[in-house]
Amino acid sequence: MFSSKTYNDRREVLAKNLNNGKILLMGNSQVPMNYPSNWLRFRQDSNFLYYCGLDYPDLNLVIDTSSGESTLFGNDLTIQDIVWEGERTSIANMAEVSGIQSVLPSNQLSSFLLGSNETIHYLPLYRQDQQVFLESILNNNKIESSKSLIINVISQRSIKTEDELSEIESAIEVTMDMHKLAMRQTSDGILEQTIAGKIEGYALQNGRELAYPVIFTTRGEILHNHNHNNIMCSGQLALNDSGAESPMHYASDITRTFPVSGRFTDLQKEIYNIVYNMQEAAFDYCKPGNSYRQAHLTASKIAVEGLINMGIMKGNADDAVKEGAHALFFPHGLGHMLGLDVHDMEGLGEDLVGYNEESNRSNQFGLAYLRLAKELVEGFVLTVEPGIYFIPHLINQWKAENKSSAFINYDSLNKFVDFGGIRIEDNVVITSDGYRILGPHIPRTINEIEDVMA
Amino acid sequence: MFSSKTYNDRREVLAKNLNNGKILLMGNSQVPMNYPSNWLRFRQDSNFLYYCGLDYPDLNLVIDTSSGESTLFGNDLTIQDIVWEGERTSIANMAEVSGIQSVLPSNQLSSFLLGSNETIHYLPLYRQDQQVFLESILNNNKIESSKSLIINVISQRSIKTEDELSEIESAIEVTMDMHKLAMRQTSDGILEQTIAGKIEGYALQNGRELAYPVIFTTRGEILHNHNHNNIMCSGQLALNDSGAESPMHYASDITRTFPVSGRFTDLQKEIYNIVYNMQEAAFDYCKPGNSYRQAHLTASKIAVEGLINMGIMKGNADDAVKEGAHALFFPHGLGHMLGLDVHDMEGLGEDLVGYNEESNRSNQFGLAYLRLAKELVEGFVLTVEPGIYFIPHLINQWKAENKSSAFINYDSLNKFVDFGGIRIEDNVVITSDGYRILGPHIPRTINEIEDVMA
Repeated sequence: MFSSKTYNDRREVLAKNLNNGKILLMGNSQVPMNYPSNWLRFRQDSNFLYYCGLDYPDLNLVIDTSSGESTLFGNDLTIQDIVWEGERTSIANMAEVSGIQSVLPSNQLSSFLLGSNETIHYLPLYRQDQQVFLESILNNNKIESSKSLIINVISQRSIKTEDELSEIESAIEVTMDMHKLAMRQTSDGILEQTIAGKIEGYALQNGRELAYPVIFTTRGEILHNHNHNNIMCSGQLALNDSGAESPMHYASDITRTFPVSGRFTDLQKEIYNIVYNMQEAAFDYCKPGNSYRQAHLTASKIAVEGLINMGIMKGNADDAVKEGAHALFFPHGLGHMLGLDVHDMEGLGEDLVGYNEESNRSNQFGLAYLRLAKELVEGFVLTVEPGIYFIPHLINQWKAENKSSAFINYDSLNKFVDFGGIRIEDNVVITSDGYRILGPHIPRTINEIEDVMA
Repeated sequence: MFSSKTYNDRREVLAKNLNNGKILLMGNSQVPMNYPSNWLRFRQDSNFLYYCGLDYPDLNLVIDTSSGESTLFGNDLTIQDIVWEGERTSIANMAEVSGIQSVLPSNQLSSFLLGSNETIHYLPLYRQDQQVFLESILNNNKIESSKSLIINVISQRSIKTEDELSEIESAIEVTMDMHKLAMRQTSDGILEQTIAGKIEGYALQNGRELAYPVIFTTRGEILHNHNHNNIMCSGQLALNDSGAESPMHYASDITRTFPVSGRFTDLQKEIYNIVYNMQEAAFDYCKPGNSYRQAHLTASKIAVEGLINMGIMKGNADDAVKEGAHALFFPHGLGHMLGLDVHDMEGLGEDLVGYNEESNRSNQFGLAYLRLAKELVEGFVLTVEPGIYFIPHLINQWKAENKSSAFINYDSLNKFVDFGGIRIEDNVVITSDGYRILGPHIPRTINEIEDVMA
């Protein structure tokens, strides 16, 4: 945990900025796996972690904006709980380490909230058990989250402090080892699941959880591919998109793509270097005042230019990007915010996090998936993750519609049916005059990767 | 998956035995981790797996008891889903491999169920999202699960077929490796989490999930201890309670306790051998017609006799067991059913699974936690998991109350403050004339364990 002062300061800023009513921050409960007492992994709510750092189930926090004081609601363990589950620090001690002024048992939350006629602010819910709990607490009163609370939380969580950057870098340290392990242990004839299991096992051995389910696949063109059933073969590429959490549950989100054999083919090198150049161009665009939409479009243009050089695309690169023709090969956004969530604050509303009045979301295929478009600000942490993919379903669909045929040489794509996809992803912080790649260096160039795999 | 005939037969038996109304079997959905699209591990509902074997989210099955026919409700992926998540077998193909007669899109489930005035049977819910979904499907009609359905499902799932035994044994094969790995890699100075992570990683590398969260601890006296933060020291015992699932999600549930140093102390050997003898005595009691309550009490008496020999307990062993004095050291039940759930069918009601008219649940401390008490039947699969623990909180409480002081030499317990606990657990099937320990042999005697760790 951070210091009690850190959490107290965060809550005070929030209370002052919101300046009316009571703020309810709900901690998460355990979720049953296949019957009531066999649980899935416990993951605390990120907003709850941000404002009090307490990593236990069944807690709730109320901030009174008029007094600025906070009350923690929770129950101490019974002797029976202790016999079965072991001791746990007391609710009073939890409050103390988090700088919370008062504690009350959980069954007083409802009357505490409903006792005054003040507005009750709360954040959007993403699990049904949260919804059911909230309805019970509010006696089925109007259930609607608070836009003003959302905006204030986003404003605070968007700017990362040095302490938060250290957490993210601690996550990336473990992630670096996960990626090197994957490169070293991958070879012809190995099942994807063997490597995926080693990656997750490595995180767990180090007391870490994953920030999101491992993507480890020779079918990298499937963007969120969570199957690990293929046997890997020489000639294929393996795409590893995986990241550990820090001890305080800050995320890392790193992707590397490397050849199963340890040596890239010439064709793989050509595509890889285009993606590498997309990422470098995007990095250069990362500074305060530049919009991330423009970084995305800049990387897209590099993609088109590279693909024109290879005879895959044709025509004028600017026009191709304007029409969205590159999205056949780069159908997702350049990146997103990163913090306590891997898609940071996505639960608060993607548009509120990544867009503002000047940056409306496009409805063009590809650009529509860009999660972060607005102007960058010092302290933002974000992913830079360009990719080029050859997606048979998408190619067939576009070809059948003759879509963007002025820019795409469909006949050239036959040899890419089994190519897969390449993505390179790193995490950066926006500094006063540019950016800094977070964490230790993870092999990224063709030579660096081939060296690790040699 | 098993054959379509297997699932068809199971559904036909259920429809015939229930003989009225429609049976709704709800598949599970994904549960968000920290925002809507970042998910916890997907685990299909066990009853759904039992009756159709389909391991995908957002499916529902309705069995019409009058026609005996089944309808699968689900939606095929869109092209957008396929681009992001990859292809998936079609709903029609799912129905075919499971022997299901009809398919309909998910949005027709409600009208299909409410269209007739027949009773709708469903099973108890254990996740809030199931409750919310069901309320939406039934238009907030009366929400109450069906006792007759529960009883018929328990009756079918309680008797394991050869195919099911093979699955459980396949789970135990991986679990054996997990346990040997833990024994070999444990030594002075290693963190518990290092071994716990290796255990889980090993399962994942083999494409398996865990049947329940790993218990791996030097504080084995905390019965469900999921913390792994201690550094292990020579002289301590490590308790490893962990089990992989089979490919079809059948559970295994194995516990071994071993010395961190690789060599038991004399005191540890004395307690270990009592627990070993408890398990052997319980095995001998495992045959059709014997009650598991009696097996529990038999093991308890062995515990008392052993502890009397060591000067920890005193008096008449039968009287001590009758009073429940042994429960200070053996506070949990001897075992439980095992199958698609590690506590098999616990979500259907522990008493309905483990008790019958002749076997009411005791309210005596210790015996009250016995999950399985009724007479054993050929085909039952269950755990046999005696243990002896020295639980400081419980000892202090009993001592302060002078509880069972005719049977307990409280003064003798001072040297056991840091002893921890020992549990030995295996999985057995009840045969026509006795029992069979399932799976390959996992080192269990003191000599076998010391040999593996040498």
